[in-house]
Amino acid sequence: MSGSYAQPLVYFFGQGRADGTAAMKEVLGGKGAGLAEMTTIGIPVPPGFTIASSLCLTYLESRQFPPRLRAEVENSLHRLEATTGKQFGGADHPLLVSVRSGAAVSMPGMMETILNLGLNDTTVEGLTRQSGNPQFAWDSYRRFVQMYASVVYDLPKRPFDDLLEARKRKSGVERDIDLPAEELKALVQEFKTLVRVERGRPFPELPLDQLWGAIAAVFESWNTRRAIDYRRLHDIPDTMGTAVNVVTMVFGNIGEDSGTGVAFSRDPSTGERRIYGEYLLNAQGEDVVAGIRNPEPIARLKDTLPDAFNELERTARLLERHFRDVQDMEFTIERGRLYMLQTRRGQRSGHAAVRVACEMVDEGLITEEEAVARIPPNDLNQLLHPTIDPDSKLDLLTTGLPASPGAASGIVVFDADLAEAQAKAGDAVILVRRETSPEDFHGMVAARAVLTARGGMTSHAAVVARGMGKPCVAGAQELEVDEHLGHVRVNGRRIAAGEWITVDGATGRVYAGRAALKTPELSGNFTRLLGWADRLRHLRVRCNADTPADAHRGRDFGAEGIGLCRTEHMFFEGGRLEAMREMIVARDTEGRKRALAKLLPMQRADFEAIFRAMDGHPVCIRLLDPPLHEFLPKEPAEIDALAGEMKIEPAELRRIIDGLTEVNPMLGLRGCRLGILYPEITAMQARAIFEAACTVASRQGRVMPEVMIPLTSNVIEFRKQALIVRQVSSEVFGERQITVPFTLGTMIELPRAALTADEIAREAQFFSFGTNDLTQTTWGLSRDDAGRFLPLYLEQNIIDDDPFQVLDRAGVGKLMTIACELGRGTRPDLKLGICGEHGGEPASVAFCDQLGMNYVSCSPFRVPIARLAAAQSALAERGTMDRTRATV
Amino acid sequence: MSGSYAQPLVYFFGQGRADGTAAMKEVLGGKGAGLAEMTTIGIPVPPGFTIASSLCLTYLESRQFPPRLRAEVENSLHRLEATTGKQFGGADHPLLVSVRSGAAVSMPGMMETILNLGLNDTTVEGLTRQSGNPQFAWDSYRRFVQMYASVVYDLPKRPFDDLLEARKRKSGVERDIDLPAEELKALVQEFKTLVRVERGRPFPELPLDQLWGAIAAVFESWNTRRAIDYRRLHDIPDTMGTAVNVVTMVFGNIGEDSGTGVAFSRDPSTGERRIYGEYLLNAQGEDVVAGIRNPEPIARLKDTLPDAFNELERTARLLERHFRDVQDMEFTIERGRLYMLQTRRGQRSGHAAVRVACEMVDEGLITEEEAVARIPPNDLNQLLHPTIDPDSKLDLLTTGLPASPGAASGIVVFDADLAEAQAKAGDAVILVRRETSPEDFHGMVAARAVLTARGGMTSHAAVVARGMGKPCVAGAQELEVDEHLGHVRVNGRRIAAGEWITVDGATGRVYAGRAALKTPELSGNFTRLLGWADRLRHLRVRCNADTPADAHRGRDFGAEGIGLCRTEHMFFEGGRLEAMREMIVARDTEGRKRALAKLLPMQRADFEAIFRAMDGHPVCIRLLDPPLHEFLPKEPAEIDALAGEMKIEPAELRRIIDGLTEVNPMLGLRGCRLGILYPEITAMQARAIFEAACTVASRQGRVMPEVMIPLTSNVIEFRKQALIVRQVSSEVFGERQITVPFTLGTMIELPRAALTADEIAREAQFFSFGTNDLTQTTWGLSRDDAGRFLPLYLEQNIIDDDPFQVLDRAGVGKLMTIACELGRGTRPDLKLGICGEHGGEPASVAFCDQLGMNYVSCSPFRVPIARLAAAQSALAERGTMDRTRATV
Repeated sequence: MSGSYAQPLVYFFGQGRADGTAAMKEVLGGKGAGLAEMTTIGIPVPPGFTIASSLCLTYLESRQFPPRLRAEVENSLHRLEATTGKQFGGADHPLLVSVRSGAAVSMPGMMETILNLGLNDTTVEGLTRQSGNPQFAWDSYRRFVQMYASVVYDLPKRPFDDLLEARKRKSGVERDIDLPAEELKALVQEFKTLVRVERGRPFPELPLDQLWGAIAAVFESWNTRRAIDYRRLHDIPDTMGTAVNVVTMVFGNIGEDSGTGVAFSRDPSTGERRIYGEYLLNAQGEDVVAGIRNPEPIARLKDTLPDAFNELERTARLLERHFRDVQDMEFTIERGRLYMLQTRRGQRSGHAAVRVACEMVDEGLITEEEAVARIPPNDLNQLLHPTIDPDSKLDLLTTGLPASPGAASGIVVFDADLAEAQAKAGDAVILVRRETSPEDFHGMVAARAVLTARGGMTSHAAVVARGMGKPCVAGAQELEVDEHLGHVRVNGRRIAAGEWITVDGATGRVYAGRAALKTPELSGNFTRLLGWADRLRHLRVRCNADTPADAHRGRDFGAEGIGLCRTEHMFFEGGRLEAMREMIVARDTEGRKRALAKLLPMQRADFEAIFRAMDGHPVCIRLLDPPLHEFLPKEPAEIDALAGEMKIEPAELRRIIDGLTEVNPMLGLRGCRLGILYPEITAMQARAIFEAACTVASRQGRVMPEVMIPLTSNVIEFRKQALIVRQVSSEVFGERQITVPFTLGTMIELPRAALTADEIAREAQFFSFGTNDLTQTTWGLSRDDAGRFLPLYLEQNIIDDDPFQVLDRAGVGKLMTIACELGRGTRPDLKLGICGEHGGEPASVAFCDQLGMNYVSCSPFRVPIARLAAAQSALAERGTMDRTRATV
Repeated sequence: MSGSYAQPLVYFFGQGRADGTAAMKEVLGGKGAGLAEMTTIGIPVPPGFTIASSLCLTYLESRQFPPRLRAEVENSLHRLEATTGKQFGGADHPLLVSVRSGAAVSMPGMMETILNLGLNDTTVEGLTRQSGNPQFAWDSYRRFVQMYASVVYDLPKRPFDDLLEARKRKSGVERDIDLPAEELKALVQEFKTLVRVERGRPFPELPLDQLWGAIAAVFESWNTRRAIDYRRLHDIPDTMGTAVNVVTMVFGNIGEDSGTGVAFSRDPSTGERRIYGEYLLNAQGEDVVAGIRNPEPIARLKDTLPDAFNELERTARLLERHFRDVQDMEFTIERGRLYMLQTRRGQRSGHAAVRVACEMVDEGLITEEEAVARIPPNDLNQLLHPTIDPDSKLDLLTTGLPASPGAASGIVVFDADLAEAQAKAGDAVILVRRETSPEDFHGMVAARAVLTARGGMTSHAAVVARGMGKPCVAGAQELEVDEHLGHVRVNGRRIAAGEWITVDGATGRVYAGRAALKTPELSGNFTRLLGWADRLRHLRVRCNADTPADAHRGRDFGAEGIGLCRTEHMFFEGGRLEAMREMIVARDTEGRKRALAKLLPMQRADFEAIFRAMDGHPVCIRLLDPPLHEFLPKEPAEIDALAGEMKIEPAELRRIIDGLTEVNPMLGLRGCRLGILYPEITAMQARAIFEAACTVASRQGRVMPEVMIPLTSNVIEFRKQALIVRQVSSEVFGERQITVPFTLGTMIELPRAALTADEIAREAQFFSFGTNDLTQTTWGLSRDDAGRFLPLYLEQNIIDDDPFQVLDRAGVGKLMTIACELGRGTRPDLKLGICGEHGGEPASVAFCDQLGMNYVSCSPFRVPIARLAAAQSALAERGTMDRTRATV
């Protein structure tokens, strides 16, 4: 209660005037603020009052109501009586109210509602007289006692339902509303007896006692297990509290000219500008929710109660214009007259969000900036990938991690070669593996989707699939994949190779059989919206692309360059893997150089095509990064076969592979360590880059290569590698008689690189944060292994987000901040970017923008998301985001 | 030459007066400063002059001598002529000089010397007349031409030697000095002809030309490949340059009453206070170095030339008193008269260092602080571990990493069980493995030493061996260990099981056969010295100890508590491993609890014994840390056998082991992640700790447990684990009716923990830096895998030190600094310690002291080293270290 005396505790609304406004959500909750605002702007709202949410904690601390609250509530009740001309507990014209919770942030289904409060054995007679409908009056009374027993006294629902069912059987009726008044009357008495027996005290007859009990129950509902869990999950502070709304009852259950329903001002699925929703005649709100009767689509209301429908449509438009957004409304029709009980911002699909935003700009309702600010960037995923038709009947097998969005159906294949062969033969194929490795790359290219039993959101399968924009469910731990027996077991079922399954990478769900899919179409609205976003953002957006096809796709999605071109992915295709393996098993530098000479023309051709695709936009090429053993087989049979191909002794090859095996490959011989050990690899790659650049440039093409040294931990490593690259560039430019400008920089993917960024920036012209690896080392967390405990960490709220998905600002972000400051301290024009998975995650994009970075880079399919997120970050800096987000 | 006009370029010394002093090493080099100082204090030094080292770079930049230098050198030559009464190039009394390099830091054997300069066809006659010894004169001339050709003209030595040998054969003599004068004369002409032919120009006759050529050659020698490499290796700046010393020749080769030698003022091996060294009669300095004749031990000089010997002894005492340290001197005796040519600080063994320091304190020569400041802490290793008798004849097999100091001989055994059995049977055993794992622990306990083919300085074998103070050579990559065939191949040789080998863990060398060993004895001097150190240091020193035996050993070496008690090592012994495995394969919490109940009494008994051993000193116990798969076998046969023992299906056990296998175990399910997933493990360990503490306390014992949560990355992890520990403590204290004070803290071993130390310190009462793992994650460097490229990194000077051995201040150290500042910001009395391998490395200890940490902890055998290093760090803070280190 401390210090709250200056503010009213209770806010009245009615007769076109209200103490509160829409801006007072913090005080009144979302529902209370909406009711107050609707009242003020002339929408038909039953009068009532709202108890401020601050009282919730006050009550929960002491389990007592402050005297001032009692006084203000009773005062408001008197005002309500005066407004409605009814009396609370009055025998003739009884005032009945609903009591409903409503916090500042919507917590759907988390808290409690009580209808028809004020009924007792006296007032029910008044209601009967007033309505001329005893059945309605007793049904309302029956509902009230039943609801009150459950919500306020926490009694189990079952015995009440049993009594109701017994009465229905006895009367031979099927629907609750068909029970005759006398039966309902008897039922009320049975209910009240049940309450007395269970509680040891009679059901409260005094409406004021009923009211305070209900208010207490709403406050108590703030601290139920499910409410607390919901708040944890959604980061809602416990101190927020819920307001209580006490509203004059209007009755949808008073006859066939009455009813209740919910409606959206536009179709939340498509965004079409038409009333969308459903209703029930002769019913109260709980009937719609409970699903006892099947509600009718709202269009039918036009025929049934055309005046009410027109009024609803008019109201919806009015509310949309007022709140400048799609509204999600609750209404009741009492004897043909429409009352609005709630309005709030309507949730919508990604498709709808884009369409609505653009159309509202056209309608002059919102500005382009507001349109940009309103779309949750990840919602664009729905516009970019196939989705399962919502009407499909599906047979859920299991759920894994939603590793790469999009849905696909196909036949199960367990082997990459087979996947390629069957896809060539025209089959739709889903590659199912315990986990994937770089050797499975061609199988992933051929497959419609990838499903793995192990690995997390940033496992190989997940990263590669996202890069290709291909659906992937990873780490579906219930799957027991037996590749040799050619089947997978899951929850007691067996799926054999060749059987159809459907994978939804947006939800992580895996279904048996084939599902109807909706293919995405990029609408004009999508393009318009992103055009607006591009004008607002400061941060540049590039794509991660390893192939010319990726590069083209990235450009199509608006990428302004390539932020990460992983040269090693080029080594798995075609005859390259053979040359790569020859290089690895070579006994000496000369042998390595011979093998590298075979790789050179292939790399050069790739780079040429990529440079052409990017047409002068920067292309950041990372030199060879992964440990060499990734290029060699693991299974004994495969090793023997390879030894045969390579014409060396199997024992010798095994010895080589054994020598390359590492305890912790993530922390082993990779990145620039390879280039230090085998400078000829760096030299070959540099030559391929510069020869390709010269070729493109000499044919009047534009080209801007950036050469990136991976896994630097120490400036001297960088200096040594940079020296090789510069030497090769001079050689090539001399041979070709042309000079191509280029820059040389490094990945910052080790804590030590971040901590010594001042030294590294003396030599490096750009930093690209490899936040995948930086997260692994900062947390000491292998993304391949974290699946065994990270879900538990999320469940127990030890972490708020998977740090591989959402950039960890407190840890990894602090290192990035240190690196940016140190780096720019040495080299003020240091170019800063991010190329980890986080480059396409909206919150992480915002963080990069705040850090003053130059660009983010992400897989092509996330480029639109990053563009939008970058624009929103720019708006947030100007305060625009907060303003738009604050609307109801 | 810039700005150097103010200072003289040349410094004269002679007749008891010198322009320079011992303090001018930077200008005069070590040799020049010593010559000047000796001259001033009245020691017989041939007069001469020193060219300042700054001229070296001046010359190397332009390849020209500044006119002022020419003037000062010629001026000094005139002074020399006046002093000696001889003439440079004079026909009657020719002045001859030596020209020698000498930088501020000793670079032994790196640079050049020329003797007898000033001889030509004229002056040789004067020398003949003067000495009355034509053979001596021509031999000196012959030597001069030969040396000059090699040093100044860089001609190959072989043709000169061939001509000399031909003359000796012709004359029928064996020794150079027995060649008659005529033959020598002919030889000089042959040498000069050879020079003319090779160079196309005659040998310079003018002594001044000879001198400038020699000075240039000395300056040029600063930039030879070997000199540059030596500087890189020892961190000597290239800009230092070398001085040039031009000294009047005195002749040890003028007859049998003449000679030359080197001597120490005390025995550098034992420290005994007696002249130690060797000499040759009728010889010049190069003969001693070249090893053409065998020098005599210096004691014999007493009989041969007693006056000269007495003078040498007197001079040695004088120099020791003056320089207050052991002197390493060069001298020449000319016709019975002693001349000193050089004096410098004498290198000495660890044994000698301690004895000399203590005895010099007793002699009143130095203070206790100086004694402490003088001993390189790592030298104590020689006092703590067995060493190979220097007189042993050894057969080197290969060299690995010097992973744990000490030497041992034993028979080769490839299997831990066999090692245990054979050791029990009385054999001295060396355990030889490709690499060790925790399963080999009992074998390591039984072995005299451990030898591995793989793994680095912080591999399992290395860490465990150091902890036990047992010799270990790790990562001896040339070894091909075939455990099944029962032999090891190395450099074409085969060593079978049962053959004797000798391992020197201080040098990394492995020898075939058995060597004589010297066992260490801890002298009274050792104890005195460490007593002085203890009075000086601020930093506390604890030991890492996992067993009561380790704890006792730590106390014996002066540990003031246990900084790291790794509970998992307790799980590998006796019946514990079985219970541990039972816990791991348990299907549910109840099964785990049953297995844990078996472990409880064993852990409790261990803790009791350890608490008793530490007698109230703090004991920091780390809860279970390693990944569980470390406790399970890897080989199929072992797995089948274990399945039999455990009465479960082999397939089931394989499935469990498979499920626990990790791609990067270092970054996987370990540390507090285990305790979060299986809280019952934390609870059992807490119970064992507190029950043991209560038992000890209730019997009037003193006990101070510190409970350490490992691998925290996030304060909530810590909070959750701490809650369990506190709950168990309350239970146990309630049951036992006694309360034992304890503290709760965490390892800081992940970058994220360091970066969020402010939050963690809200809950944790102490931090212990686990710098092994912190180094791994900060650098992205697996200590198990780094062996393939870290040696190259050291060789190429990409890193100065192995970061697992010497704490990396720029990276890991920066994180530690951040963590200390953030942690103490939240909790000013936060206790800070280090328990990684660096806790016993002197430079790292100094860094911890500078950071204001409370203690370091290291393996028991390194405790004395850490005590000494901590004292030196305290002295350095007061400036004492610099003063003492500045003496010659």
